[in-house]
Amino acid sequence: MTGFVSLVGAGPGDPELLTLKAADRLRRADLVLHDALVDPAALELAPQARFFYVGKRARRRSISQHTIERLMTRAALRGERVVRLKCGDPFVLGRGGEEALALARAGIPYEVVPGVSSAVAAPALAGIPVTHRGLASGFAVVSGHAEEAFAPALRSLSPGALTLVVLMGLATRARIAQVLLDRGWPASVPAAVVLEASWPEQASWTGTLGELGGCTLPAEHPEAAGVLVIGEVVSVAEALSAVPAAAVRAA
Amino acid sequence: MTGFVSLVGAGPGDPELLTLKAADRLRRADLVLHDALVDPAALELAPQARFFYVGKRARRRSISQHTIERLMTRAALRGERVVRLKCGDPFVLGRGGEEALALARAGIPYEVVPGVSSAVAAPALAGIPVTHRGLASGFAVVSGHAEEAFAPALRSLSPGALTLVVLMGLATRARIAQVLLDRGWPASVPAAVVLEASWPEQASWTGTLGELGGCTLPAEHPEAAGVLVIGEVVSVAEALSAVPAAAVRAA
Repeated sequence: MTGFVSLVGAGPGDPELLTLKAADRLRRADLVLHDALVDPAALELAPQARFFYVGKRARRRSISQHTIERLMTRAALRGERVVRLKCGDPFVLGRGGEEALALARAGIPYEVVPGVSSAVAAPALAGIPVTHRGLASGFAVVSGHAEEAFAPALRSLSPGALTLVVLMGLATRARIAQVLLDRGWPASVPAAVVLEASWPEQASWTGTLGELGGCTLPAEHPEAAGVLVIGEVVSVAEALSAVPAAAVRAA
Repeated sequence: MTGFVSLVGAGPGDPELLTLKAADRLRRADLVLHDALVDPAALELAPQARFFYVGKRARRRSISQHTIERLMTRAALRGERVVRLKCGDPFVLGRGGEEALALARAGIPYEVVPGVSSAVAAPALAGIPVTHRGLASGFAVVSGHAEEAFAPALRSLSPGALTLVVLMGLATRARIAQVLLDRGWPASVPAAVVLEASWPEQASWTGTLGELGGCTLPAEHPEAAGVLVIGEVVSVAEALSAVPAAAVRAA
């Protein structure tokens, strides 16, 4: 009997930001194939499962996409319940579409369990709404991983019309800022970097687009753990942080 | 003693897409202020709470934003645990930023609990990844509610560079399509409408941008329950649906 694969979004990191459906699928999983940036506490939700780390991190020999797809397919053909646990949402810059196609072509029953995307949650947890009345009625999300992809994507946006969120752009932030400045974005536009959103180590930097390229950040953050936000909405975080700290911290 | 307000994302509708943190906050809530499109089963997670419906729907007398903020503030000042349960993510087109600012200014302790945004989940649940290698390395999310906001936002995007997702654009889809065609998007670009994503009534239409304005949809869907997706990534759903149906349905 053929098993079943769930392509599951793990959210930004905090295991409490898993969905109820994600927790249910983990509880019943025989095999969990997981990315980097998934909290060990999330894996504890899968008491019966074997785990296999298939994450891709910079400067580390990575498992090929083909191998991941083969691992999922083989386990399902053995009748196992497989959870492919992906950071954030499985269909945002995570090659989830390719994994769905591979499963469909192999005749494996599967489902997609959407997750909380860092594209929205990381700014939110730093006090930045990606939309805000009078400041932005929409937002764009772009991968900062490779310049041949991000340069045309960034140039396709009129300066300042939408809030810009860049995922996987920590290492390339100087080039990203330069492309935007060359495109006509004012250097004075507020900008933020949110690091390790929802983790205990969460930190953020705010400044301007002109300062973004040269800003100093702690060096130890993995690439995928940083989210850039560029736009007037960053000023909302500043307005919130002007309120006495005691008033804005959780009880 | 001052209470506490949680600005909580309820996700697209299916209560199983609430986060574990959202479920915890509901469990402990004294008062829940909720939008339309929140499933009654989600409210059952809050056994001790009073409920207050503060949703805004087209053609219905709506509660003002000021009243919502006053209700939250007053309950918190009485010492209550308040959950402000908002569709999708609280900081995507939901005036969550305004609510956070109102709470901060009133000195009320609060937190933001990010949720699964329909902007990503609705396409995903219809088999459409908003990004896909070779098709789109980013996406833009725009409100289709009011033409004075969506027309400049849509014109700010170069045709086809990013996947375009429009929330609250069901009623205005003919104007949205026209603005994009006038901007130079080809009429042949694939387009989809996803209705009631994650609800039992979920349905979708796929076609082209040229057909989007005139496409016939069931009339009874509330405005906020429709998500438009425009871009080559829509073709992934077609590729997935070409696979035998038995293979792609959940067990």
